[in-house]
Amino acid sequence: MPTAYAATSAKGALHRFEFDPGELRSDEVEIQVTHCGVCHSDLSMLDNDWGISAYPFVPGHEVTGTVAALGSEARGLRIGQRVGLGWSARSCLSCPECLSGAHHLCRSLEGTIVKRHGGFADRVRAQWPWVRPLPDGLDAGKVGPLLCGGITVFSPFLIHAITPTARVGVIGIGGLGHLALQFANKWGCEVHAFTTSDSKEAEARKLGAHQVHNTRRDPALKSLTGQLDLIISTVNVPQDISGLLGTLAPKGRLHVVGAVLEPMSIMAFGLIQGQKCVSGSPTGSPAALDAMLAFSARHAITPVTETFPMSHVNEALDHLRAGKARYRIVLENDLG
Amino acid sequence: MPTAYAATSAKGALHRFEFDPGELRSDEVEIQVTHCGVCHSDLSMLDNDWGISAYPFVPGHEVTGTVAALGSEARGLRIGQRVGLGWSARSCLSCPECLSGAHHLCRSLEGTIVKRHGGFADRVRAQWPWVRPLPDGLDAGKVGPLLCGGITVFSPFLIHAITPTARVGVIGIGGLGHLALQFANKWGCEVHAFTTSDSKEAEARKLGAHQVHNTRRDPALKSLTGQLDLIISTVNVPQDISGLLGTLAPKGRLHVVGAVLEPMSIMAFGLIQGQKCVSGSPTGSPAALDAMLAFSARHAITPVTETFPMSHVNEALDHLRAGKARYRIVLENDLG
Repeated sequence: MPTAYAATSAKGALHRFEFDPGELRSDEVEIQVTHCGVCHSDLSMLDNDWGISAYPFVPGHEVTGTVAALGSEARGLRIGQRVGLGWSARSCLSCPECLSGAHHLCRSLEGTIVKRHGGFADRVRAQWPWVRPLPDGLDAGKVGPLLCGGITVFSPFLIHAITPTARVGVIGIGGLGHLALQFANKWGCEVHAFTTSDSKEAEARKLGAHQVHNTRRDPALKSLTGQLDLIISTVNVPQDISGLLGTLAPKGRLHVVGAVLEPMSIMAFGLIQGQKCVSGSPTGSPAALDAMLAFSARHAITPVTETFPMSHVNEALDHLRAGKARYRIVLENDLG
Repeated sequence: MPTAYAATSAKGALHRFEFDPGELRSDEVEIQVTHCGVCHSDLSMLDNDWGISAYPFVPGHEVTGTVAALGSEARGLRIGQRVGLGWSARSCLSCPECLSGAHHLCRSLEGTIVKRHGGFADRVRAQWPWVRPLPDGLDAGKVGPLLCGGITVFSPFLIHAITPTARVGVIGIGGLGHLALQFANKWGCEVHAFTTSDSKEAEARKLGAHQVHNTRRDPALKSLTGQLDLIISTVNVPQDISGLLGTLAPKGRLHVVGAVLEPMSIMAFGLIQGQKCVSGSPTGSPAALDAMLAFSARHAITPVTETFPMSHVNEALDHLRAGKARYRIVLENDLG
C-alpha cells in the first residue's frame, strides 16, 4: 500500500495517509519516490484556489525516483531506471495536440495532483509518456523543481525559437525566475533580471544575469526602451505592461507564465507599433521535458534548493507560504 | 511643379495646391500618379488625431502610377515602369530592422503622408525601396488599397507562418477585412468572417468566407470554442477579448491590426492555458509588399472599390467618413 501525505480539507494540514491505488493500468508506471519538489501550485491546489481540488488531497508534482513497476503497454522505460514526473500525469494521445507532440495542451490532460494522488508519497503513478528518464549527471535530490518550475520557463525559449543572439529579461527572481536566469545565460543570451529586492542582486548575477534592474528604484524600463527580444514574467502580481512593452525591441515578446489574477491592460498600438506580442504558456510536452533535462545536464543547471525530510512536509509548506524559500524546496522521502 | 490636394488646417477641406518639391534626392523616385486609394488613416492624419500632422497636408498613401524620375542611387526601377507606393516612404536602411529586412519597423521610418506630401497629387516621391513594381495582371486602377490596407492584413500570415491547414477568423468586413477574407481563402485556409451586420453575409461568402458569424445575434464565440488558429481583428472598436481567446485552438493567435484606442483587458490564464498570444503589426516590409502583390496577381485578389475623380476628393472623403465606402475608395488622377 502506498503511503502519502494528504489533506482532508482545503488549507488543512497534511497527515500520513495510506491508500489502495488498485491494479496498475496497462499504460501507467509506478515510481518509487526518492524526492519531490514543492511548488506554489501545490499550495494553490491544497487551498482549492482554482476550485478543482479533491480531498483527501496528496500534493507533489516535481517527483524524482526510480521505476518500480511498468504496465504492460508502458514504453521506453525499464524497472529501476531513474525518472522524473512533473505537472502532467496523463494525456489522451489521440487529440490533435497529442498527435502533434503538444501533449501538454491535450484537452483532457490530467494533472499529477488533479483528482490523482501526487508525489508527497513513497509511490506515485503516471502514464508512461509523462515519466521521463533522468540523464546521468543530474542529482535526483536537486532536479525535482526542473520538472514543473523549470519546464515552465524553458518552454518560452522553444515556443519563440529564441536564438543565442537575443536579449532576454526575467521578471521575478524566485522559484521560476532563478531557473529562467540560468537557462537564458546558458542559452547564450544577454540576460536582464528584474527584481524589487536589492538583496537578490548578487544572487541574480551568480545565476546568470548580466544586468540587474531594481524596478522599485531604477528607471529601468525607460533606460531599456526598445532593447529586449523576450521578457519572461514569472510573478503573480500585476505589472506595468505598457512599460514592459516599451522595453521590447521590434518583434519582441512579453511571455507570461505567472498566473496574475487581475487582467492585464494592453493598448493595441503598443503591439502594432514594433510588431510585438504578449503570450503565455503552461509547462511543456514530454519532448520539451527531455530537451530541458538534457540541456540542464549539459550545462550543469541546478535549482537552488532547501531540503526537508518528507515527514516535515507541513513545516516545508509553511516555509513556502511565508515566501522564505530560497529558491525551491525539495522533500526527501523518509516514509516507511 | 507638382499639383496636389491639400488641407491647410486640421479637418479642413482639401484644395488644389502647387508646391516646389526641390531637387530629387539621389535615393528617391518620383512617381507620376495615376490612382490613389483613400484609407482611414488619411482621415486620421487630416484630422490630426495622432498629433503628428503638418499643414498644408496632402493625404494619399495607396499610390499607383509610373516612374517619372529616378535619383542617381535609386535601384531596381526604370523610367515608365508601373509601380505602387504604400504607407512608408523612407527608412534608414542601416538600423538592425532595415538590415534584417524588417524596414517597416525602422526606428526612423517616414510615412508617405507624415511631414511629406502624399499621393493625392499628380506627382509623389519616395525612397526607392518603398516604390514597388506592380506585377502584370494587376489593374493599377484597383490595386492601390493593397498597398496599405492589403499589406496590413497580409503581414499576419507571414509573421505567424500560417499554413493552409489553419482555420482563420476575420473580425470586421470593411476596407481591411474584405481583403483579409480573400487572402485567407486563397492561402488555402478555412475562413470565418465575424460581422455585426447581416447585410454583409452574402458578400463575405463571395469574398471567401466559409462561415459567417453575426456576433450581435449568434452565440458565435461559444460555438467556436477552441477552433481557430488565427484571428485577425481589423476593427477599431473594443472586442470581447476573453471570448475571442476562447475561440482560439491551442497555440492560437489573436492578431490586432485595428487601432482600438481603449485598452484591451486580457487575463494571463487566457494566454497560459492553450499557449496563446495576442499580437499586432503595422503594414509590412518591401519584401512583404512584393510577396503580397505577386500573391494577389496569381490569385486574382482585387480590392472591391468605388472610384472618384481626384477632383472630387472632398466628396470621396465625406463618403468614407460616413462609413459608406464599399469597401475601399480609389481616386483617379484628373489633375492638369
